Amino acid sequence: MKIDLNSDMGEGFGRWKIADDDGLMDVVSSANIACGFHAGDYAIMNETVRKAKEKGVGIGAHPGLPDLMGFGRRAMTVSDADMESMMVYQIGALQSLAALHGHRVTHVSYHAAFGNMANADEALALRLTRAIAALDRELTVFCMSGQLTERAAEKAGLRTRTLFLADRAYTDQGTLVPRGQPGAVIHDLSAIRARVWQFLEDGSVTTATGSRLPVKAKSILVHSDTPGSLELARAIRAEIEATGAILTPACRLDD
Amino acid sequence: MKIDLNSDMGEGFGRWKIADDDGLMDVVSSANIACGFHAGDYAIMNETVRKAKEKGVGIGAHPGLPDLMGFGRRAMTVSDADMESMMVYQIGALQSLAALHGHRVTHVSYHAAFGNMANADEALALRLTRAIAALDRELTVFCMSGQLTERAAEKAGLRTRTLFLADRAYTDQGTLVPRGQPGAVIHDLSAIRARVWQFLEDGSVTTATGSRLPVKAKSILVHSDTPGSLELARAIRAEIEATGAILTPACRLDD
Amino acid sequence: MKIDLNSDMGEGFGRWKIADDDGLMDVVSSANIACGFHAGDYAIMNETVRKAKEKGVGIGAHPGLPDLMGFGRRAMTVSDADMESMMVYQIGALQSLAALHGHRVTHVSYHAAFGNMANADEALALRLTRAIAALDRELTVFCMSGQLTERAAEKAGLRTRTLFLADRAYTDQGTLVPRGQPGAVIHDLSAIRARVWQFLEDGSVTTATGSRLPVKAKSILVHSDTPGSLELARAIRAEIEATGAILTPACRLDD
Amino acid sequence: MKIDLNSDMGEGFGRWKIADDDGLMDVVSSANIACGFHAGDYAIMNETVRKAKEKGVGIGAHPGLPDLMGFGRRAMTVSDADMESMMVYQIGALQSLAALHGHRVTHVSYHAAFGNMANADEALALRLTRAIAALDRELTVFCMSGQLTERAAEKAGLRTRTLFLADRAYTDQGTLVPRGQPGAVIHDLSAIRARVWQFLEDGSVTTATGSRLPVKAKSILVHSDTPGSLELARAIRAEIEATGAILTPACRLDD
Repeated sequence: MKIDLNSDMGEGFGRWKIADDDGLMDVVSSANIACGFHAGDYAIMNETVRKAKEKGVGIGAHPGLPDLMGFGRRAMTVSDADMESMMVYQIGALQSLAALHGHRVTHVSYHAAFGNMANADEALALRLTRAIAALDRELTVFCMSGQLTERAAEKAGLRTRTLFLADRAYTDQGTLVPRGQPGAVIHDLSAIRARVWQFLEDGSVTTATGSRLPVKAKSILVHSDTPGSLELARAIRAEIEATGAILTPACRLDD
Repeated sequence: MKIDLNSDMGEGFGRWKIADDDGLMDVVSSANIACGFHAGDYAIMNETVRKAKEKGVGIGAHPGLPDLMGFGRRAMTVSDADMESMMVYQIGALQSLAALHGHRVTHVSYHAAFGNMANADEALALRLTRAIAALDRELTVFCMSGQLTERAAEKAGLRTRTLFLADRAYTDQGTLVPRGQPGAVIHDLSAIRARVWQFLEDGSVTTATGSRLPVKAKSILVHSDTPGSLELARAIRAEIEATGAILTPACRLDD
Repeated sequence: MKIDLNSDMGEGFGRWKIADDDGLMDVVSSANIACGFHAGDYAIMNETVRKAKEKGVGIGAHPGLPDLMGFGRRAMTVSDADMESMMVYQIGALQSLAALHGHRVTHVSYHAAFGNMANADEALALRLTRAIAALDRELTVFCMSGQLTERAAEKAGLRTRTLFLADRAYTDQGTLVPRGQPGAVIHDLSAIRARVWQFLEDGSVTTATGSRLPVKAKSILVHSDTPGSLELARAIRAEIEATGAILTPACRLDD
Repeated sequence: MKIDLNSDMGEGFGRWKIADDDGLMDVVSSANIACGFHAGDYAIMNETVRKAKEKGVGIGAHPGLPDLMGFGRRAMTVSDADMESMMVYQIGALQSLAALHGHRVTHVSYHAAFGNMANADEALALRLTRAIAALDRELTVFCMSGQLTERAAEKAGLRTRTLFLADRAYTDQGTLVPRGQPGAVIHDLSAIRARVWQFLEDGSVTTATGSRLPVKAKSILVHSDTPGSLELARAIRAEIEATGAILTPACRLDD
């Protein structure tokens, strides 16, 4: 069985860093690279692409709202046309840096408020995925199961990859328990490893109420901007390898 | 005879504008589009590309230093690696927006301090043009005759286009008389038309000392950020048409 | 009778300009100066303050959201604490430049989305005006009659100045007819002069329905970022002088 | 004997952090606060000022070049007038936030390339200090002994505070051994404590060649943006207290 482990990468700016990207690059199989709007800059992007190429890590664009100070988390009033233009701009910038290193952007993963806006507006979600398809029909869209952006990507003829979050509690409906609610984030590494095992062996997750919920994902996401993200990624990778699954960039997963 | 008339475009930001881009788009055959670093933003770039496609105007990237407030005119200490990354980032962003509109970026024209830095450092000039070649071997580099960037582009195997500035005085060495010196900028439209006529009919320019200097260019540049740039562009175009030359985007000129 | 004529000023950025600030500075009695967040930069602010001092024009801070590309018009999700900090930051920056020129900031006028947010949230409006009072109890707050920010300023013990917009249609409730509705903006200069005359002589405005509505304002605002703003300001000033009223900076008006 | 221990503070941006500011605030007596140009933003500045007030830590402005990505370390071509305006803007922004918290800016410490430019140009150094004096004659200027900015501040009638860097090697001329040269930075905490002891007890430092050099400083600077800065600051403070010297904000030191 092939499984992808991915993480947001390159989310620093100039001298500032969020995560131990060097460490993560040795652990993950795919990287979602910030493109200079919510985080990242040309130098960080260049270096992140270079390392990903060197390590055989697949890369995707991680477009966000133009708001460095708010890390792309502050909702803004932006037209659909501007959402499209800013996303295309960001993807293109990364594609070009990838070309410089003989690498290739193979997926798109929306960041924070940008993604929330796309998931709240069907017309926007469709417009965005059609724009992605116009750039490169081979691009895969990352999403959570059941999101508007998943259906929009399918309508636009794009492949999607559903993400599994091993350190987040799930509701019985398959959505994440919102941050801030008790138990929303799971910190215990052995509990997280157990969840990865269950996900890989049984294709399911135990929800916050104790139910068993099937999960279709083939890609596990680690948020790099939380403390201990490198240890979390390593624990998940160790469990993946323990089950005999083969770590594989999202773009090379079977359908 | 085919001749290109080009101008910098999209050099506004948000609500701010520098030139009458709508007017210029009806007059020029090629547009050098600002890519968000010294000017321009994703929305302006998108709109500029859309109009260029509609009007059959060829497009090029106009990369600059990351300095909106200084309009890319303030020299900065930036490493060669960063110059390369920021240029590739900007070209890619524009290529992607072009793809969205079924258009194609066919040339690169360095902006202000970015270009000055490239023209003062052979290793940098070569690095930049090799990066351009890595992105797309068909990209043409705009330059002034005899500049370092011209030789570098040739070394990198890229086609170059030498620019003629109809409203600027030339020295006997073929360089521009620096702004600030008397007579550096020619304001009289009939004098400018006469220079265009001489350039097209005789392949020469009369220098500041009165000598006749051969000019190899096939592309005339109008700086859009000076007052009256639209009138200047119209006067040049009228003269081009009066001589029977055919206005042609730089990418479709014969060699 | 003393009357103030004010306009937003310094709303360019780097090379970009919105209005003919040099011209306006000869016409108005008060300037609302952009502070670098939605527009303006340290150099423009410095120059605007210098000219205002030279011409005897009163100055106020014109704080906005941190969004140059959106000109401060895009709503953003920002906490009340951040609204307070960004406003205080902007006012202080201008106060300091004023001190350099021996001038003094005497009023505050909220810009666009920043002002809309303050006018939609009583707690925020009060927090902002209390912060203004903490900086300088002599600062006057500009507002429209009946706005939340007017009451908040009064609660905070600050003086307010109600604005009259001579080129905007009023509803019977004393609010502005929203832009986009027919007749919202009055373009005819003689009609505008007639409205100024009525406002000064009769203290009233004729609403969109033809009713006569009393207006308590002593300050007339001209939006500088509309085409023809200089001509509009001149027309209003001419009418003010024709009625014998004395143009006076807002800070020197009687209560 | 009174001695000041200070550190640059608030040099994050949005979500990004450089140092453990919370920890440092318990250790130092003065904070040099970034003002939003090379680092820092209104929210971080506000929070840093609030904590400094709470902890009794003196505050100063730490103005830099407008270059977040380069952390104010990239030299830029900027006119003297612009250097003055950007410094005044930054100081004023901080003064205003200080006023909001009942605190007061009592010193100015130039950051990186901004300081280098001032120290390389006597006319600029004088212009800057005269501008500081125009804002508040009580402001103290931080500098290294013998720098142009020290003399300029004295000419402008401002008090200066010479800094001692306990973790940096000194030349026999009293300048710092440039970073990159062997031994330039001292990492051993007990060696650093010994240097603090010598500085406090003997008023001297042992130079890289082994000579004893008198040091007039009464203020010790810890660069917060190096790994281990909090431990370094704690070690220095422990040594200060061990010698019986009294930690005192720079603004309350005797002359």
